[in-house]
Amino acid sequence: MQRSLSELNGCSRDDFVASLANIFECSPWIAEQAAAARPFAGVKPLLAAMKDTVDRAPAEQRMTLIKAHPDLANKTQRAAGLTAESTSEQNSLGLDRLSDAEFEAFERVNNAYRAKFGFPYIVCVRRHTKDSVLRDFERRLPNDVATETQTSINEICRIAALRLDQFVVSDDRLAVHGRLSTHVLDTHSGKPAVGISVVLTELSDLGEARVIARAVTNSDGRTDQPLIGGRPVPIGRYELMFSVGEYFAGRGVPMSDPPFLDQIPLRFSVSDPEGHLHVPLLVTPWSYGTYRGS
Amino acid sequence: MQRSLSELNGCSRDDFVASLANIFECSPWIAEQAAAARPFAGVKPLLAAMKDTVDRAPAEQRMTLIKAHPDLANKTQRAAGLTAESTSEQNSLGLDRLSDAEFEAFERVNNAYRAKFGFPYIVCVRRHTKDSVLRDFERRLPNDVATETQTSINEICRIAALRLDQFVVSDDRLAVHGRLSTHVLDTHSGKPAVGISVVLTELSDLGEARVIARAVTNSDGRTDQPLIGGRPVPIGRYELMFSVGEYFAGRGVPMSDPPFLDQIPLRFSVSDPEGHLHVPLLVTPWSYGTYRGS
Amino acid sequence: MQRSLSELNGCSRDDFVASLANIFECSPWIAEQAAAARPFAGVKPLLAAMKDTVDRAPAEQRMTLIKAHPDLANKTQRAAGLTAESTSEQNSLGLDRLSDAEFEAFERVNNAYRAKFGFPYIVCVRRHTKDSVLRDFERRLPNDVATETQTSINEICRIAALRLDQFVVSDDRLAVHGRLSTHVLDTHSGKPAVGISVVLTELSDLGEARVIARAVTNSDGRTDQPLIGGRPVPIGRYELMFSVGEYFAGRGVPMSDPPFLDQIPLRFSVSDPEGHLHVPLLVTPWSYGTYRGS
Amino acid sequence: MQRSLSELNGCSRDDFVASLANIFECSPWIAEQAAAARPFAGVKPLLAAMKDTVDRAPAEQRMTLIKAHPDLANKTQRAAGLTAESTSEQNSLGLDRLSDAEFEAFERVNNAYRAKFGFPYIVCVRRHTKDSVLRDFERRLPNDVATETQTSINEICRIAALRLDQFVVSDDRLAVHGRLSTHVLDTHSGKPAVGISVVLTELSDLGEARVIARAVTNSDGRTDQPLIGGRPVPIGRYELMFSVGEYFAGRGVPMSDPPFLDQIPLRFSVSDPEGHLHVPLLVTPWSYGTYRGS
Repeated sequence: MQRSLSELNGCSRDDFVASLANIFECSPWIAEQAAAARPFAGVKPLLAAMKDTVDRAPAEQRMTLIKAHPDLANKTQRAAGLTAESTSEQNSLGLDRLSDAEFEAFERVNNAYRAKFGFPYIVCVRRHTKDSVLRDFERRLPNDVATETQTSINEICRIAALRLDQFVVSDDRLAVHGRLSTHVLDTHSGKPAVGISVVLTELSDLGEARVIARAVTNSDGRTDQPLIGGRPVPIGRYELMFSVGEYFAGRGVPMSDPPFLDQIPLRFSVSDPEGHLHVPLLVTPWSYGTYRGS
Repeated sequence: MQRSLSELNGCSRDDFVASLANIFECSPWIAEQAAAARPFAGVKPLLAAMKDTVDRAPAEQRMTLIKAHPDLANKTQRAAGLTAESTSEQNSLGLDRLSDAEFEAFERVNNAYRAKFGFPYIVCVRRHTKDSVLRDFERRLPNDVATETQTSINEICRIAALRLDQFVVSDDRLAVHGRLSTHVLDTHSGKPAVGISVVLTELSDLGEARVIARAVTNSDGRTDQPLIGGRPVPIGRYELMFSVGEYFAGRGVPMSDPPFLDQIPLRFSVSDPEGHLHVPLLVTPWSYGTYRGS
Repeated sequence: MQRSLSELNGCSRDDFVASLANIFECSPWIAEQAAAARPFAGVKPLLAAMKDTVDRAPAEQRMTLIKAHPDLANKTQRAAGLTAESTSEQNSLGLDRLSDAEFEAFERVNNAYRAKFGFPYIVCVRRHTKDSVLRDFERRLPNDVATETQTSINEICRIAALRLDQFVVSDDRLAVHGRLSTHVLDTHSGKPAVGISVVLTELSDLGEARVIARAVTNSDGRTDQPLIGGRPVPIGRYELMFSVGEYFAGRGVPMSDPPFLDQIPLRFSVSDPEGHLHVPLLVTPWSYGTYRGS
Repeated sequence: MQRSLSELNGCSRDDFVASLANIFECSPWIAEQAAAARPFAGVKPLLAAMKDTVDRAPAEQRMTLIKAHPDLANKTQRAAGLTAESTSEQNSLGLDRLSDAEFEAFERVNNAYRAKFGFPYIVCVRRHTKDSVLRDFERRLPNDVATETQTSINEICRIAALRLDQFVVSDDRLAVHGRLSTHVLDTHSGKPAVGISVVLTELSDLGEARVIARAVTNSDGRTDQPLIGGRPVPIGRYELMFSVGEYFAGRGVPMSDPPFLDQIPLRFSVSDPEGHLHVPLLVTPWSYGTYRGS
């Protein structure tokens, strides 16, 4: 369920607080302070006000906020019930369907982190793949408590921004979405390649590759929708597979048998979840190229 | 063991025939006729004389030649013993280490073919991968007997040419070898990419992918040896994998984290086993391209 | 001066005819017939109605329409005065500043054509460069009278469409505009190339090259405005020149001295004046590529 | 006329000195000292011995060597007669056919340099184009006398190396030659582009562009001879022009009219006269690319 900004500006204080209680996990006190600052001209100032409340809170309260978060992929906690927001976020990463090996990897992360710092490892999972979460953990584990306290707050604010973006309908938009797109140019005929089957797969060192999107290029050589859009593009490794053999065969282009090029894989990584990443393919039956476009 | 052409020209008739008895599988009569035509100016005229003998033989004798060949991947025949030449050739295709599914696929081929034509399915396996043998079979099975008789003779001559090439040392060479090579150009620095790890894998629809060659690029951006050389390049699908992330990181080039490009796969098919196929990579940390070179 | 479609629909018959009298050169009778068919839902049906009038006119009247057109680049006629529309169109081709050699070339065209067919050579000059007009003439001169009569009518309708597009303001638009655009991608840094100086030149076999547009790439690696837009892209040969040496030097990229690449020229031809032609540049200090994009 | 190394090793001292008197301009004393060190195992140790003599000579003698050189493009000196070597070298740069503007530019260089340093501006012209000589001058003029004295000696040794390379026939070769080559790959058909006309032009800021080489690609898509080879590749700006429109038209490839690509110019600079520079073209009727190869 979504609420419009004007509704949130106009409703009762209690309604406002109830609506935004979980924007910061189980921490309605942040919404409470924001309530007093209404009306907001947009969702951006609303988020700014809530972040500001967090920044100005005493250290103990900030730590309480941190500790209000569940562990990643903790079966006991999941059985006991997470907030709807946390459940949805963890599922987006596939934490609800981990293999045993993956589950062990996450459990190891959580335990090691909690043992060292005394609070759960928090990361904005919508910006990540399973592999990048584990890499992030490995980087953060050597840090000191002060650094990790601040990093946790930063991640919590990222989580809050995405929750707010999903919940509040406003004329302005938070800059929390990225986009992954492609474009196939047939440089044999000098035209956009129409009808090419494209499959986007998330690769993983840890577990199995997972198909994220399937599409067919349209009359402009593009896909009707971005391969990933309207959300962060998770940090991670990907493969785009283009069925070019079928395409050129269907156009009657002379080829070798078997065709020199048939299924063309492009492998690349995403490092900026909020960025616009364009990965085009320029292709003939005998050559191809790609580049990081924008 | 190899023999020089001059030895073969100068030795006794019996020695000559014994030496070349299995150039055409279990068919010393072909060597016998060639013996009378000595001396040969090179291995090319020697092969031509032997082929000519086959071409001019009566139909029944040609059929006897065909039937002298073993089935592909027949466990009973392998247990009973093949010629050393057949064993080596079949092993080159990996027929000695088939999975159960693959074994069944080959058995199905053999039985179906033999049932229709009354003689074994013959193919010059050194020019093929397992996948391409099965595709070849599927194409040939609908043929009529006359066509397949001639196709079998052609394949037998290809087998003979490769056996002769391996056995006879001569100044001239039969055109039975292909070559697969690569070249990595770092268009970020404008220089050959030195020290890039390259892995060549044979892909398979049927069974598992198999690493064929590993190499590291030298100061010219090339591999010291061709990836495949001195033999036919088997018809089939391949993947070349280039470790470019490591290379650019080692040169201190600014990259995203994780790097946009890390392991770059190039997938292509070989259709001409005796051809020279060059598959170069032009690469920056943000773009790459390839083409069928020569 | 422009008129809105609703004004044209609502004004007096005389006003309507006077306004559109020269859409077809000096031929108000076409506007007269269109006046009766008002109101028009858009500029497309208005043009269709006028074309229909031409198509259904008797042959003599169509010939009168053809003969109402001036010669190309005829100094006497220009001195005597052309319609404002014809003057503007001829000037767009540069017919008002021809060299002596060019003037002679056009005079030869006109005279040869008029001598053969008895009417002036008509071409929609806004869709052409001087070179392509002369090539068009060479192709059309061998035709017979019937073919050229019809070709002339077709060109007259193209001229009318462009005149109507300029004069009438309507919600719908005639498909008479093309676009030429570029995009510079710096594949050395993986980003759009910002601040690259771009010069578009029209090349000519006949006379001198002529600079058409100058621009600098913006933060997206594109030019703020298309290089040519809001009008047909004249058929002809062009050169785009990109100052990449300056760009990379300004970014401190190590280069040879002198830089391997400095001014990069891309030469290409336009064949479809109403099409969208995109000519991008992918560039490092050591490599570049281009393709016909869309 | 050339002499073999063994002849030079075996001939009389006087003959040796006479033969090599002008390897260093008008300075037989260097050959005299080398004569005593005979026999030489190759032309490399011979050059090393002569350079060593220069390096160990007293400062006044080194200055005498410097002053033994003529001015560049000095009409009076040319009229009075230069050594054959100097004449040939200066002509290679086109100094015998300068325009008035160019002549003035060189005269200005010489006079300014001589006025400041008291000795002629010396540069190994076979490694340069006219433009790069003038750029070299501009860089060197601000130097102090010590720097320019040493630079002059370095240039004199380069001149000597090239003279020695041309005069002495030996099994070993001095590394004084560069190479400029090209290769055209038709990525529309996946084959080398055969029969493409290629023209190499030296560009100039100062004067007119000058055609250096014309060639047609052979069955391997290369030119039979390097575009420049067997000599240094002069530092400067060049354009390679490829007639690809004609090529694709001749193969019946569908194209637009006029063809999108017809004459493709590649502009690049040479900075390393002794290097191997490879400038390939990968081309379809709708796309092309190039890179600095090796």
